[in-house]
Amino acid sequence: MEKVLIKNGLVLSMAAERPVISAGDILIEGSIIAKIGKSLPAEGVDKRIDARGKVIMPGLINCHSHAAMALFRGYSDDLRLMDWLSKKIWPAEARIRGEEIYWGTMLASAEMIRSGTTTFADMYAFMEDVAAAVRDSGMRASLCQGLAFRDERAGLKRIKYTYRLFENWHGQAGGRITAMVGPHAPYTVPPDKMRLVIDLAAELNAAVHTHLAETSEEVDQIREMYGKSPTRYLADLGLFDSCRVLLAHAVHLTGEDISFLRGIKGGISHNPVSNMKLGCGVAPVVDLRRAGVTVGLGTDGAGSSSTLDMFQQIKTAAWLQKNHLGDPAAITAYEVLRMATVEGSRALGLEKETGTLEEGKKADIIIIDIEKPHLYPHNDICSLLAYSATGADVDTTIINGQIVMEKRVLLSMDEKEVMKKARECAAKILEA
Amino acid sequence: MEKVLIKNGLVLSMAAERPVISAGDILIEGSIIAKIGKSLPAEGVDKRIDARGKVIMPGLINCHSHAAMALFRGYSDDLRLMDWLSKKIWPAEARIRGEEIYWGTMLASAEMIRSGTTTFADMYAFMEDVAAAVRDSGMRASLCQGLAFRDERAGLKRIKYTYRLFENWHGQAGGRITAMVGPHAPYTVPPDKMRLVIDLAAELNAAVHTHLAETSEEVDQIREMYGKSPTRYLADLGLFDSCRVLLAHAVHLTGEDISFLRGIKGGISHNPVSNMKLGCGVAPVVDLRRAGVTVGLGTDGAGSSSTLDMFQQIKTAAWLQKNHLGDPAAITAYEVLRMATVEGSRALGLEKETGTLEEGKKADIIIIDIEKPHLYPHNDICSLLAYSATGADVDTTIINGQIVMEKRVLLSMDEKEVMKKARECAAKILEA
Repeated sequence: MEKVLIKNGLVLSMAAERPVISAGDILIEGSIIAKIGKSLPAEGVDKRIDARGKVIMPGLINCHSHAAMALFRGYSDDLRLMDWLSKKIWPAEARIRGEEIYWGTMLASAEMIRSGTTTFADMYAFMEDVAAAVRDSGMRASLCQGLAFRDERAGLKRIKYTYRLFENWHGQAGGRITAMVGPHAPYTVPPDKMRLVIDLAAELNAAVHTHLAETSEEVDQIREMYGKSPTRYLADLGLFDSCRVLLAHAVHLTGEDISFLRGIKGGISHNPVSNMKLGCGVAPVVDLRRAGVTVGLGTDGAGSSSTLDMFQQIKTAAWLQKNHLGDPAAITAYEVLRMATVEGSRALGLEKETGTLEEGKKADIIIIDIEKPHLYPHNDICSLLAYSATGADVDTTIINGQIVMEKRVLLSMDEKEVMKKARECAAKILEA
Repeated sequence: MEKVLIKNGLVLSMAAERPVISAGDILIEGSIIAKIGKSLPAEGVDKRIDARGKVIMPGLINCHSHAAMALFRGYSDDLRLMDWLSKKIWPAEARIRGEEIYWGTMLASAEMIRSGTTTFADMYAFMEDVAAAVRDSGMRASLCQGLAFRDERAGLKRIKYTYRLFENWHGQAGGRITAMVGPHAPYTVPPDKMRLVIDLAAELNAAVHTHLAETSEEVDQIREMYGKSPTRYLADLGLFDSCRVLLAHAVHLTGEDISFLRGIKGGISHNPVSNMKLGCGVAPVVDLRRAGVTVGLGTDGAGSSSTLDMFQQIKTAAWLQKNHLGDPAAITAYEVLRMATVEGSRALGLEKETGTLEEGKKADIIIIDIEKPHLYPHNDICSLLAYSATGADVDTTIINGQIVMEKRVLLSMDEKEVMKKARECAAKILEA
């Protein structure tokens, strides 16, 4: 079992309600954090990492993405939603196959590792190809096949893919891959199909990842169809009682909606960059957290959000709440850092494995270089990490004990090859 | 006269209403862009820069900052404005002297050069020390002494400093430094003093840099004092008729206010990160631009905004308008790139020298490496630059023909020394 010793860093474990920053070392044995402490002995260690002048913190958790959409980055910006979908995304998605999904996910994984993300939750198609990319890139991921039922036969076929994903990939890649059930959204999954999905999740003992209340149009549509809000629609079908859930967006919520969400197992993925860039509105993050709901952060797909840098989500989440509520004290640097780590792990049901630096947990660790002008002086480490750092400041990324990036060099994949393949795949499916 | 030839880049000149991206070369002679074209001959050239796989664009223009406040980065985040000022900033500012101002500005300049900013507009104290830092760092800057008159004698002393700044520094450092007159804000400059400032600007033939309508509290206060909006207050005093102006923030404007601003010479500095982080509100950027008002982008001081990365301002400006107006088409990638370049140069009255890549203009140029996973694939260069790139993607920065950063290495200053001095200065003036 390989032993890696990280020496002399500033350890921000994220394990407490308030930041505790201690100078120290971390010993990794195999995939596990074996020891956190001071002056740990280096005997028998296979690899030493010098973290002097650097922060050691848990890897970031991206709670909502469509990773392979990295191929669509910048392809269709500044368009209204229906133009974006009908003129650009749907025609391109009709041409996409497993190969494009694989390389798109590899590209996204390269970006995520480079910017300090160690776990992501993904909903898309061809999920076995996504799983293969997760296996190869070294990422940790919770994957689900998107289930939409606008075309009933296609919808049922995707249920077959869900079974396959569970059979072939759940718990695979050294335990890095978990699977979820992925009903797309209230407006694409009618009540009878949602009940079927709930049964499926029970049968597979799996969590449910779905979009919820992303736009006001969705709220209007569901109200027209069912006479209730999207949240109540899901609540009335029993989703929140029966299943652990991961709810993406949750922008348009009433007070009553929040009361339905109060008791959910799992949590919400707040995706502030995607919400702002698509003009969707402001999720009631402060209210949700006050109600005790777990809120993690996600990037959504780079086709819409343009970036998978979770540090961008962290600062944008804080800014958006502060500005929306007219109160710079509405949410703190440490709170948004918690959303990107420990709360994200809870939203994904991975809180026993990741989200904090604690002995016995999986070694999902990032090391951030703060010896740079834009991170000087070091008046407050949490403020620096939340508001001044970017993904480019991540020096080293470790997932499941494997060093996947060291000193900004990707070790788990051939980055040039990934970029070349991604360019070729994009050329194949996108119109010039 | 030194000749530098940049070869084989993607040139985005920002000189046209729509993006024109051409593969090409740029020849710099001394401080000037001598030639833009294809396959320019390398004879007699002192230095060649290979820009293959990179974008060449104008340096970014930061229209509003308090650069030396970089020392306060992270010192007082997540506090309400009056707590921030009275408990943290004012006590620290009372201890600040020229030395701290110099090293704080050097730190800010290091950060700005590293993130592609070549020009900044600054308002603060000890401006001769700021000017010395601008001289030494190689930046281009428009400087003004902040003039507040809550204490009348101190206010008049600052007018003396303004004269000195003009005498000793206007047009200095190879023409990189220009001076402005800097009345702080409507709520700190009463009518008689604002008239005095307007006369001073006329006497010095100078532009006026001031804060305007940053918070709703300011609007309430000015309404209570003068029975009108802050914008109308300045308009009625004749500021907009008499002077070229640079108006920072302009968040809280009525339709009537916008009509007063329609004809101004100069422009507005929109500072979206600062506005959001302090919970100030959303400036009516789309309305202002539609009314023909020039709107540049600024960072404000890093004490509040935490970052001086103009790429962060670019994307945040776009997101904020899109979300506020509920329309992803409200403003485009190219429009926000223009705000950060050509419109910024107009706001500062430097449009003959900088803001675009054109023959005869000053060589203020940045080169951006787009051969990275988070900038792949290259579906749309402007979208990439506006929404996916960060300051860390700037490879090379040239100001006034001088290469101040090459391949991410700062050449115009000793970065380690600057960081060390900044840390010492912060320790001296801030409470632990």
